[in-house]
Amino acid sequence: MIEQAGIKPYVIGLDLGGTNSVFGIVDSRGEIKATTAIKTGGYESAEAYVEASVNALQPIIEQVGGIEKIKAMGIGAPNGNYYTGTIEFAPNLPWAHDTKVPLAKMFSDKLGGIPVGLTNDANAAAIGEMVYGVARGMKNFIVITLGTGVGSGIVVNGQLLYGCDGFAGELGHVTMVRGEEGRSCGCGRTGCLEAYCSATGVARTARELLAKTDRPSLLRDMNPDDITSLDVSIAAGKGDELAKEIYEFTGKMLGEACADFAAFSSPEAFIFFGGMVKAGDLIMDPIKRAYNEHVLKIFRGKAQFLVSGLDGASAAVLGASAVGWEV
Amino acid sequence: MIEQAGIKPYVIGLDLGGTNSVFGIVDSRGEIKATTAIKTGGYESAEAYVEASVNALQPIIEQVGGIEKIKAMGIGAPNGNYYTGTIEFAPNLPWAHDTKVPLAKMFSDKLGGIPVGLTNDANAAAIGEMVYGVARGMKNFIVITLGTGVGSGIVVNGQLLYGCDGFAGELGHVTMVRGEEGRSCGCGRTGCLEAYCSATGVARTARELLAKTDRPSLLRDMNPDDITSLDVSIAAGKGDELAKEIYEFTGKMLGEACADFAAFSSPEAFIFFGGMVKAGDLIMDPIKRAYNEHVLKIFRGKAQFLVSGLDGASAAVLGASAVGWEV
Repeated sequence: MIEQAGIKPYVIGLDLGGTNSVFGIVDSRGEIKATTAIKTGGYESAEAYVEASVNALQPIIEQVGGIEKIKAMGIGAPNGNYYTGTIEFAPNLPWAHDTKVPLAKMFSDKLGGIPVGLTNDANAAAIGEMVYGVARGMKNFIVITLGTGVGSGIVVNGQLLYGCDGFAGELGHVTMVRGEEGRSCGCGRTGCLEAYCSATGVARTARELLAKTDRPSLLRDMNPDDITSLDVSIAAGKGDELAKEIYEFTGKMLGEACADFAAFSSPEAFIFFGGMVKAGDLIMDPIKRAYNEHVLKIFRGKAQFLVSGLDGASAAVLGASAVGWEV
Repeated sequence: MIEQAGIKPYVIGLDLGGTNSVFGIVDSRGEIKATTAIKTGGYESAEAYVEASVNALQPIIEQVGGIEKIKAMGIGAPNGNYYTGTIEFAPNLPWAHDTKVPLAKMFSDKLGGIPVGLTNDANAAAIGEMVYGVARGMKNFIVITLGTGVGSGIVVNGQLLYGCDGFAGELGHVTMVRGEEGRSCGCGRTGCLEAYCSATGVARTARELLAKTDRPSLLRDMNPDDITSLDVSIAAGKGDELAKEIYEFTGKMLGEACADFAAFSSPEAFIFFGGMVKAGDLIMDPIKRAYNEHVLKIFRGKAQFLVSGLDGASAAVLGASAVGWEV
């Protein structure tokens, strides 16, 4: 990476979200040299989307000295498959919701044949932490993304774990509550970690707890259906006991899940990424407490619990760009 | 491996068990050319154990043409750490129960400096399947050993998963039943997979089911405390409904656990190893059924469920010897 930096010092990162597609040109130290963005939707076909992307990219590529300064491109996208470079049946992408789109090859063809790597957003976050973030130098760690859903990127022996099909690392869908008691999950099953610990899971915990008790809470001033995890965070920050209990519950479940993950890959760190992490110790303390209570003795005290080292606003673009260094 | 076979065609395997230590000299196709064994206990020190081992090994080494025909040695041992080549605090080994024994180095020193690799028995089984067994050519699979305990060896990207400390792959200790209902486990925690699906777990399920109901069963002819998993297997083989239900319960829990493991590493196969696997479809069918019911949709139908391809009597020695090819 360093060796080649003299010749082709930059990679392009694309954070392909359901609403916006954000591009950045990034150097090997994780400095973003130029950015641009387009809307992700509004295109009839993947071809039209790629064309609009490349048009938006041209000026910022020129800005850094032209395509010959670009080593590669990395894309972080929902349902992205690293092995095939395709986006597969992504429900939120109109031009990819019922098919497999070979997006990596399509970008490469339009960008003078530079290598293009594509993976899902959580895996991109994990590579981002390894290349620019708090996991530099680590060979075994797990990134857990806490957002609308719960995602994960698992690194073992210094490599991202893709499994036999490119889809390994779906830790949001391990079962935490078995049987009929389990909450229904977006995946069609019940009791998944994501159903409890995603932003929507936290809001649901809030509604359940408000309905089950008549304890006072700032959250009672709101229409229950409008409560978001951000509201819970704000209330907890003001010292609201019920809101703090919601984080306690969420963190406890994450900590217990991490104890199981340790039995799998014994990572040196768990790294938390995403909006909910802004709650800081409110969420990190119960995670650590539950982990230490539940983890197998031989693993106790070995793993660090860290918050993402990537700058919040540009974390996803940085993660995506990091995939470019690894192609 | 093949290339070097002409020069040094053999490895030594040592299956270091609590009672017996079995040695085999094995070629690259998994054929055992010579074997010997000593008792594992009865030695005051690790030095005395290694000396007795090497004395027992001399004649079989001569038999295959001398130490210059031996490429390496592999050891499968309880609490074996691949990174350090040590056995660490192994409760059942008198000369290693309160210390770390650098067994790999000790054997290497006494065997003319050949490389010696050491790992735990479940990891050795996984390497054995990859080198000689049903996992040849696979890069992502999980071996689950069903014996006195439940162990596992996880292979990702063609490499055994050791984690940051050498102890990854303790899937017998993921939590399957949370809270107070969970059975106590030998590890000091509750609800572990091992507490339900090991041989002792199966016997415990039998006792619980016999006590809870008054349904007829061949197992009622026995003293409940004497029932073993073998008795359950024999009764089930005779068509005993209650015994079959015990396997159904055990397989269901294993299948649900495998569904979580798929979310982790998306393996192309789960391979079951150990005495309990002799029950065949009685255990494999409920495993597969529960897996397909519980696994995330994107993984459904992708993983094979296989029974170990290593010959039962010599499987552990073969697994250990395979570690030698990988050193």
